Amino acid sequence: MSKFINFQTDPAKYRHWKVAYDGPIANLYMDVDENGGLFEGYQLKLNSYDLGVDIELADVVQRMRFEHPEVKVVVMQSAKDRVFCAGANIRMLGGAAHSHKVNFCKFTNETRNTFEAAEADSGQKYIAAVKGACAGGGYELALACNYIMLTDDSSSSVALPEVPLLAVLPGTGGLTRVTDKRKVRRDLADIFCSIEEGVKGKKAKDWRLVDEVIQNSKFDATVQERAAEFAAKSTKADVSKGITLGPINRTISENAVTYSTVEVALDRVARKATITLHGPDGDAPANMAEVEAQGDQSYMLRLARELDDAILHLRLNEMELGLVAFQTQGDPDLLLAHEAVLLANKDHWLANETLQYWKRILKRIDVTSRSLVAIVEHGSCFAGVLAELLWAVDRSYMMEDEFEGDNRPIARIKLSEVNFGQFPMANDLTRLETRFLGEDTRVDDLKGKIGDAMEASDAEENGLVTMILDDIDWEDEVRIFLEERASFSPDAMTGMEANLRFAGPETMETRIFGRLTAWQNWIFNRPNAVGSNGALQRYGTGVRGEYNLERV
Amino acid sequence: MSKFINFQTDPAKYRHWKVAYDGPIANLYMDVDENGGLFEGYQLKLNSYDLGVDIELADVVQRMRFEHPEVKVVVMQSAKDRVFCAGANIRMLGGAAHSHKVNFCKFTNETRNTFEAAEADSGQKYIAAVKGACAGGGYELALACNYIMLTDDSSSSVALPEVPLLAVLPGTGGLTRVTDKRKVRRDLADIFCSIEEGVKGKKAKDWRLVDEVIQNSKFDATVQERAAEFAAKSTKADVSKGITLGPINRTISENAVTYSTVEVALDRVARKATITLHGPDGDAPANMAEVEAQGDQSYMLRLARELDDAILHLRLNEMELGLVAFQTQGDPDLLLAHEAVLLANKDHWLANETLQYWKRILKRIDVTSRSLVAIVEHGSCFAGVLAELLWAVDRSYMMEDEFEGDNRPIARIKLSEVNFGQFPMANDLTRLETRFLGEDTRVDDLKGKIGDAMEASDAEENGLVTMILDDIDWEDEVRIFLEERASFSPDAMTGMEANLRFAGPETMETRIFGRLTAWQNWIFNRPNAVGSNGALQRYGTGVRGEYNLERV
Repeated sequence: MSKFINFQTDPAKYRHWKVAYDGPIANLYMDVDENGGLFEGYQLKLNSYDLGVDIELADVVQRMRFEHPEVKVVVMQSAKDRVFCAGANIRMLGGAAHSHKVNFCKFTNETRNTFEAAEADSGQKYIAAVKGACAGGGYELALACNYIMLTDDSSSSVALPEVPLLAVLPGTGGLTRVTDKRKVRRDLADIFCSIEEGVKGKKAKDWRLVDEVIQNSKFDATVQERAAEFAAKSTKADVSKGITLGPINRTISENAVTYSTVEVALDRVARKATITLHGPDGDAPANMAEVEAQGDQSYMLRLARELDDAILHLRLNEMELGLVAFQTQGDPDLLLAHEAVLLANKDHWLANETLQYWKRILKRIDVTSRSLVAIVEHGSCFAGVLAELLWAVDRSYMMEDEFEGDNRPIARIKLSEVNFGQFPMANDLTRLETRFLGEDTRVDDLKGKIGDAMEASDAEENGLVTMILDDIDWEDEVRIFLEERASFSPDAMTGMEANLRFAGPETMETRIFGRLTAWQNWIFNRPNAVGSNGALQRYGTGVRGEYNLERV
Repeated sequence: MSKFINFQTDPAKYRHWKVAYDGPIANLYMDVDENGGLFEGYQLKLNSYDLGVDIELADVVQRMRFEHPEVKVVVMQSAKDRVFCAGANIRMLGGAAHSHKVNFCKFTNETRNTFEAAEADSGQKYIAAVKGACAGGGYELALACNYIMLTDDSSSSVALPEVPLLAVLPGTGGLTRVTDKRKVRRDLADIFCSIEEGVKGKKAKDWRLVDEVIQNSKFDATVQERAAEFAAKSTKADVSKGITLGPINRTISENAVTYSTVEVALDRVARKATITLHGPDGDAPANMAEVEAQGDQSYMLRLARELDDAILHLRLNEMELGLVAFQTQGDPDLLLAHEAVLLANKDHWLANETLQYWKRILKRIDVTSRSLVAIVEHGSCFAGVLAELLWAVDRSYMMEDEFEGDNRPIARIKLSEVNFGQFPMANDLTRLETRFLGEDTRVDDLKGKIGDAMEASDAEENGLVTMILDDIDWEDEVRIFLEERASFSPDAMTGMEANLRFAGPETMETRIFGRLTAWQNWIFNRPNAVGSNGALQRYGTGVRGEYNLERV
């Protein structure tokens, strides 16, 4: 599975999803093309999915927010008879490398979180209208919607059959959402997760697995009624017209991926990717009308889309590059001017969507299992939103004083209002709050420094960077760090980073990425699931997996 | 490593620890006997430890609380020159089965939690007095103490070298305590966990890795000074005399383990252990003087010690028994009468210690990775503290109405005050609060039912049991459940249960058992750590592990 995976798509290319837009209501149909799998060797029967299906879904969700801000309610449903969605494709899982499975689950989790949060962030509420079998990842799609309607017929049920059937866990937040979002009593959850055939009808409602169970003959009408009710009750402001998300400007070569504002340099010997983000190339727009007119070419959105694509590209297509270094170059004040237009107009739908998108990208970086480092060189623009990168990474190195032959402006960091609440992490704290968990007053003190140009010694004193280095030490120290990091076990790095990055409170999100994922990864490595006699390999043969019986 | 592991020991048998009791201060010396390993094939050099060393430590901590209630401060230190503790023995880890490693880590974690909580629970504060190398599990011992003192000399440092040296994570809460207890900034934690040689002197204090750094010549005196200060400031009541914990009454045969109040029946074909807890055999003591006079033979303490041993025995010595069924038999009112004496005297040291011990045992059950079920038969005494078992388990089955030929009293459940706060889970909620996470008023309603004898239909209506069954269905349903459970993959069960058992808020404890453990288990299965060219196998050869470079 070392095929190039492209995260860019558009509706003209969809093979698996259809959307019917009807004013404030969008009907979203899952209609997976059996022969449209991303890889060879499996058919996507019964609306089962692989990464390709999810890339399209992520695209739908994203376009819904930028291209269709008029939408207030999205009804997720199946275009197929008698099946809502059978979940992740088992043959795909059986054949996939461990690294692909894990990255696949991570991306699907991020997509679930995105439409789950769309109601709070953008006023777009997702309803799952479940007709037919809704199993495993299918039910997890429904769980991530904020209202689940189930038809009451003999073949419609919700189920998490992974444990009895496949000896793995539901991989996209199912267990966590059952206990923590739906608040299903744990012994009922235990039963539910042990029944291959799932739960239907009244019991599904009684156990809180769904919100509403409706007689089959009235189902479609009730779903549309409910959608109209939710739309009428929505507090989302009316917006008549969105912007178009055109293709991004990207060139992929052997050792680089180049976008209009982002460059990714790949160093396979050092196992490192350097992502350089460039500051704005033009003046800040005067107001949101101008931003809207610029559409997908407005700097803040363009940079976001390109960075997002770069991260996903590295995750799936460059798995052996264990270290990602973030650099920036540009005018920090100009960057802050672009940012300021959005901040001054947070109640404008496009300003809001752009800021929310940045929140998602920064979270995506937080959970990227590569060693992350920020390299703060002269000429850099780690200001405002880009300063967040300094605390998303595992470490940061900053140039101190002048460097011989380097006539770029001295490196400095500028905070803005966004660093104090605009971009919460998965733990619901800001990155600065997480960083200074033991020293509450530091965050308050830093608020007083918004707009200050902090050179290296200031930045160090304020705890904003890990290490500052002058011309004499810079090259050696940074090189030693990079070499050392490359020599460590990638697995130990993944585990260590997953544990160090999210201090403080936990949320459903941190449980999904921190706890559920770790257990799933473990199970995905155990012979009981993936061995030649394990459940995943034996699936469909009629023979149950052969298990080592020791409890661990 | 299928040797029988005995969790019972006493000071006369210790090979690795010494304690000097001196009024309110106890000096606890780690002095591991190199040749005293639990298994063949390794030497416990440099105060490194295996499960045997930890069993003694757990015994010390337990006796400190029951036999030496006069102790207010415990100084944990090394009796060896130039080394505090080198952590878990690497050759032991390299040779151990996965299941042993995981259970070893779990027990050591529970012991760390026990002395960490001793300050809040019993007024016994642990100080770590670190002289010499303090690495890996050694530093984790110190981290679990509530005050860390480090001597300032060239050979004394604290370190978590697991990642660079062994390609695994620190396995006893190190990462979590560094970020969440010590609140070390995450980028500094990242550096700290990447440095084999660790951090010493002033930097260790600046980074919050220790509380105090002291000149070597003044170290011993300052430690004793500090201990005396803490003892003087302690709010723990003075108690002149403890009780003696004699050997427990235990008989192990091929298919049973029998204690005075607990019976464990082993069914290897069905892969099930049934633990039957017997109600009191005598009247409740009139007051705490009587309880104290009974000493380790008082019913509530005897039952606790026997149950604790039974759980540990099953965990390490019966790994293929995937299901543990809890049963009780006895007079619920008599049990509540015994419990009531402790409740009425919570400020009495022995009542407090006995209740705190029950809290720990119930937590131990919560994190036991076996499928747990409660079988509520006629004649049972699931009341008060034993009713907690109903919500510690994954499911419960209760007999309804009369059963033919069964003349035991009809099964009923009785709540007491202890079910509403005395025994918080690792998530800091009670088991009832966790159970009814979505229905806050139910817990309040249940408070009004304290003392009511709830038969099956009442218990079901109040959500206290999973399923009630009459004479006709009982045998079949229970049998089907047991058979079904035995047929599932043990790994999937472990993962599922770890995710379903702890809904709601997270704490340092749930992070250690839920998140850190899962990542460690994953890493313990990956070739980069445990393969023939992995870091654990190559340790000591001077050759670094050979790593698959893919990031997962």
